[in-house]
Amino acid sequence: MATTKVSFVDVEDLPDIAAGAAILGTGGGGDPHIGRLLAAAALRRHGPVRLVGLDDLPSDAVVLPVSLMGAPTVMVEKPPSVDQVALVVDTLAGYLGRAVTHIACAEAGGVNSLIPFVAAARLDVPLVDADMMGRAFPELQMVLPSLYGVPTTPMVIADEKGNRAVLDTVDNHWAERLARSATIDMGCTAVIATCPMTGQQAGESLVPGTLTLCRELGRLLRTSKAEHRDPVDGVVTRLRGGRLFSGKVVDVARRTVTGFARGEARLSGTDEHAGGELVLRFQNEHLIAEVDGVVRASVPDLLCTLDTETGTAVTTEALRYGQRLTVIVAPADPRWHTPGGIELAGPRYFGYDMDPVRFGEEP
Amino acid sequence: MATTKVSFVDVEDLPDIAAGAAILGTGGGGDPHIGRLLAAAALRRHGPVRLVGLDDLPSDAVVLPVSLMGAPTVMVEKPPSVDQVALVVDTLAGYLGRAVTHIACAEAGGVNSLIPFVAAARLDVPLVDADMMGRAFPELQMVLPSLYGVPTTPMVIADEKGNRAVLDTVDNHWAERLARSATIDMGCTAVIATCPMTGQQAGESLVPGTLTLCRELGRLLRTSKAEHRDPVDGVVTRLRGGRLFSGKVVDVARRTVTGFARGEARLSGTDEHAGGELVLRFQNEHLIAEVDGVVRASVPDLLCTLDTETGTAVTTEALRYGQRLTVIVAPADPRWHTPGGIELAGPRYFGYDMDPVRFGEEP
Repeated sequence: MATTKVSFVDVEDLPDIAAGAAILGTGGGGDPHIGRLLAAAALRRHGPVRLVGLDDLPSDAVVLPVSLMGAPTVMVEKPPSVDQVALVVDTLAGYLGRAVTHIACAEAGGVNSLIPFVAAARLDVPLVDADMMGRAFPELQMVLPSLYGVPTTPMVIADEKGNRAVLDTVDNHWAERLARSATIDMGCTAVIATCPMTGQQAGESLVPGTLTLCRELGRLLRTSKAEHRDPVDGVVTRLRGGRLFSGKVVDVARRTVTGFARGEARLSGTDEHAGGELVLRFQNEHLIAEVDGVVRASVPDLLCTLDTETGTAVTTEALRYGQRLTVIVAPADPRWHTPGGIELAGPRYFGYDMDPVRFGEEP
Repeated sequence: MATTKVSFVDVEDLPDIAAGAAILGTGGGGDPHIGRLLAAAALRRHGPVRLVGLDDLPSDAVVLPVSLMGAPTVMVEKPPSVDQVALVVDTLAGYLGRAVTHIACAEAGGVNSLIPFVAAARLDVPLVDADMMGRAFPELQMVLPSLYGVPTTPMVIADEKGNRAVLDTVDNHWAERLARSATIDMGCTAVIATCPMTGQQAGESLVPGTLTLCRELGRLLRTSKAEHRDPVDGVVTRLRGGRLFSGKVVDVARRTVTGFARGEARLSGTDEHAGGELVLRFQNEHLIAEVDGVVRASVPDLLCTLDTETGTAVTTEALRYGQRLTVIVAPADPRWHTPGGIELAGPRYFGYDMDPVRFGEEP
């Protein structure tokens, strides 16, 4: 089948997209089951969503990324409504005094790659096949548009009760700070619309093809079993990454603090060649992987926890004792490895006094 | 001099207004010295402010109360700028899609009766001679318009750096909650514009003549000495209140927590007829007064701490060991003594399990 630049996504495409997005979510971005249910409800009611390639975006388009903010541990228990998603878009359009012509995806993730479908279906506008990270990160300012000078605000944040706030801040760190407090007040999860941008800004700053890649990864997992292929191998090959560790989860320490799911997981190795113990440290997303006390992978590269047998992504809030997981590493969009990218989302920002360990350049 | 319904306020009127407002501020509402300096700077630059009586307000006027939110302990160190005050009004007008025709005063207080002059002068619109409480209270929803169904939001909150948020909430308690968190993030003090209302809503819900009363009280303090009158007597008579206690401050426990100045002060009696010890409990404003362990006055009535000699109001953040104070009680606007008023701002809301002790009906 030839790739066309414009395509439609319907309900039956959602399971693959959610499953693939959860892999790129690197442990965060929300549970794919929840994301799939939400988007399916919206598409059943409002019809399929038109997907537009980044290259086909008019330069004067008004593009608005829509996502969920907060702790994935809470999102599982309190999913948003279709109207809540529409409210943030309408409120921001009102504040801007301009209609939103295209919805975009803020980050890859089981929920956050699907919420934009809810917005696009409900508001009957096309969705851009792209995202702001090529993965998921826990804080608002950690998006590639930040490197291009696109401000995070004006942004809107809304809860399920109908409370909403428009934030207009002097820099992106202030947006994160005020929005995080509001998210905590709102019950640790909220719908947000951030970084309104023109088609031209989107074209130069977003990661192209993310939703198509999500669908491809999801399909790969789904078909592997029937085709007798190892699903993890397929994912590693497609992402041009590598296997880091295979093991069994022996300990998970996780707490929902300051609006995030923070913690660490320990895996005991089942692969004799790869060392005895792996420690994963996360803040919504996996940040650092240490094998036998040595950091072997770190942000900004992608650290994905996959079920060893099925290749299904396991999010940080779903980590449980006894799971058999394979941890893979995949290279981040190269812009994350520039000095600006590392300052935004490298290990030091998260409190680890070390340079990033880049895939392919490990010690 | 006959009272005219429309008058102008110029720089030389500000000291009296600030001094009188600090009395009605019942310990809160900000330091009058700061309020006077801010308003004087604005009036010197932009000219006098036209004061409009509540009766003369067109019913379709767009009236916007502007004030400072946060801990008075911090306001003293970080006063707002004229542009910060203008920013909140402009932002709310933009969100409403309507021009603001009149500024109003949110509460009586050394700063909060003066900030509206800054807004009115800078934006060249008249100021309504009224306020939303007839005193000061620490939380956003504690305003008489709440009793008339006027919502607190849409509201705007802004800091001195230029960060701002428009809040639009499902009820006034949610407005307080989200705005309080934002205030804390913004450094425990912020400029706000709340409760946009029509002239008709203002006419039925505001307390008329507050700014004129402030000026009158301030003039009374200023002229008492030359005229050999006791200033405290003058204030008590004008407010139809009573003296509760005269004494020396022997202990002050005060901390800036959850965005408020909270604490208690102890006074040792110097008036033999009035008992041995008074305890004042406050949250920005004085809430409860106990004489020898018995509650003798409480919110919603006004509890004012005046310098025994000069009658000058002493705000809760300015209470110091050794000050000789006279504590007076004055009746609140009668609407505060309705069931709705007591629910909003009676002792129980502040955590004291007791009915209000109403002035003139003490046990």
